[in-house]
Amino acid sequence: MTATAVTPVLHDPGPGLVVLDPARARLFLELDALFTGIADQLSGLPVVGPPLLPAKALARLDYFRNFPHLGIPTARFDEQAVERLAAGTDVEELPAGSTPASGYMLPSATCYGLLLSLEGAEVGAGLRLTAVGRCFRNETHYEGLRRLWGFHMREVLYVGTPEGVRDHLNTAKTLILELAGELDMELGFEPANDPFFDKDGSRAKLTRLDPVKYEFTAPDGTAIASVNRHRNFFGERLGLTSDGATAHSACAAFGVERWVHAMLLAHGDADRALDRVLAVRAGRAGR
Amino acid sequence: MTATAVTPVLHDPGPGLVVLDPARARLFLELDALFTGIADQLSGLPVVGPPLLPAKALARLDYFRNFPHLGIPTARFDEQAVERLAAGTDVEELPAGSTPASGYMLPSATCYGLLLSLEGAEVGAGLRLTAVGRCFRNETHYEGLRRLWGFHMREVLYVGTPEGVRDHLNTAKTLILELAGELDMELGFEPANDPFFDKDGSRAKLTRLDPVKYEFTAPDGTAIASVNRHRNFFGERLGLTSDGATAHSACAAFGVERWVHAMLLAHGDADRALDRVLAVRAGRAGR
Repeated sequence: MTATAVTPVLHDPGPGLVVLDPARARLFLELDALFTGIADQLSGLPVVGPPLLPAKALARLDYFRNFPHLGIPTARFDEQAVERLAAGTDVEELPAGSTPASGYMLPSATCYGLLLSLEGAEVGAGLRLTAVGRCFRNETHYEGLRRLWGFHMREVLYVGTPEGVRDHLNTAKTLILELAGELDMELGFEPANDPFFDKDGSRAKLTRLDPVKYEFTAPDGTAIASVNRHRNFFGERLGLTSDGATAHSACAAFGVERWVHAMLLAHGDADRALDRVLAVRAGRAGR
Repeated sequence: MTATAVTPVLHDPGPGLVVLDPARARLFLELDALFTGIADQLSGLPVVGPPLLPAKALARLDYFRNFPHLGIPTARFDEQAVERLAAGTDVEELPAGSTPASGYMLPSATCYGLLLSLEGAEVGAGLRLTAVGRCFRNETHYEGLRRLWGFHMREVLYVGTPEGVRDHLNTAKTLILELAGELDMELGFEPANDPFFDKDGSRAKLTRLDPVKYEFTAPDGTAIASVNRHRNFFGERLGLTSDGATAHSACAAFGVERWVHAMLLAHGDADRALDRVLAVRAGRAGR
């Protein structure tokens, strides 16, 4: 079979929502394959995380205190609405209250679902999991691939000891900067003021002295990856233990669409960016 | 770094929501790689579809007349709710009406987003796109990996001529049955009564004589793939043309978690199923 030589322009369906055309989609897929390689070097076991998260469980992680503006609840049509829609009522003409909340939220980061799935676990000397998932965040404005309503986040989560956290994040940092170098990207590495937890308390003060989040930034300031220390926060809230002691946790995170953006920025167009990614992929496969 | 030998049990966060542990996640990823190979044989160009779909646009495709019960609207917290949550109000104690609908729905199938992104396109002799995406459907009951609230659907969409539709679906059918054979799966191939469109009209009668949907079913009755003819429905509604004439369209769809289910059914456990998938992958890579 022959494909059409020219792909039509693909329209985005709304603000902060993008469709990646074949050139950018290939870049996206090959970049995530490189992140999967880093996850493998970090001994991350692949998992597929949950598509929706219970609001009740997120509340226990202070999610709504810290990030209420980002949150995207899901809903249902009630029975009357289903009947009306089937009979031809316009979806915009349903009476108020026709879509009760389901009690489940779209994830805003990949690690929440993984951590919740581990509740009560004893992880022995340490456990590493990796997953890529679609994440959603309400923002006040959206901008190209830099700031999206829905995007993909690859994470490599570690749960274990404080020493294990240090090792995980140091190794992740080295691997991320090494990859960026091979991809001809210049990345900054900066502490970020975006605590996962306890934004008003004593921990927030501590955070300013000893940052829990560092971001890797493209030359235009876009944060395309981060390393995050959760200390014992999730260990305490979710009853996670490492050889009997409350577990510490940490994650390395890649914003996949943002890497596509940064590669386009560094190489000028999708074809040249893809050539570079494929060369790096081939070089790494040959190691 | 060393990984823990034993992965803790991963808890699912709610009905119809699953977390795939490493054994099942590997099966999931390798199976989708095989589907990607089929998409490639069908000349499907990779794209990344939109994460949410505008309700207004879906209404134009009769979505709410045909599938109102499946639909999952997304919402936002209004400004007052954001303030209350940040101040510590329990998410379940927000006043009614605190979460206005966003006007965007979660996708229930991958091809809707691809078709909407093509609105108004002239596709020449024919266009094939492929994507995997998370899809969501409200069901009255959920069951393991067979019936999920959120799941992944890989599709290979064709837009072009009636002859192209026939070729696309015949080739897809051959490739799907060939793959199933290599994976030691016995699949049934049956017409299904699940029209994409116009469930009450004259087309529905026509559908009973000339089915538009065929499903590939595992021995326990689980439909794990399908081929679907849309005739000129989307072409008309979305102004799609093929060399100037209203385009016809069709898709082949894989329910990825359902293939995991069917492979577990056929091979007894995830390790044996994965061995088989890896053997098929290796054989195909060597072709």
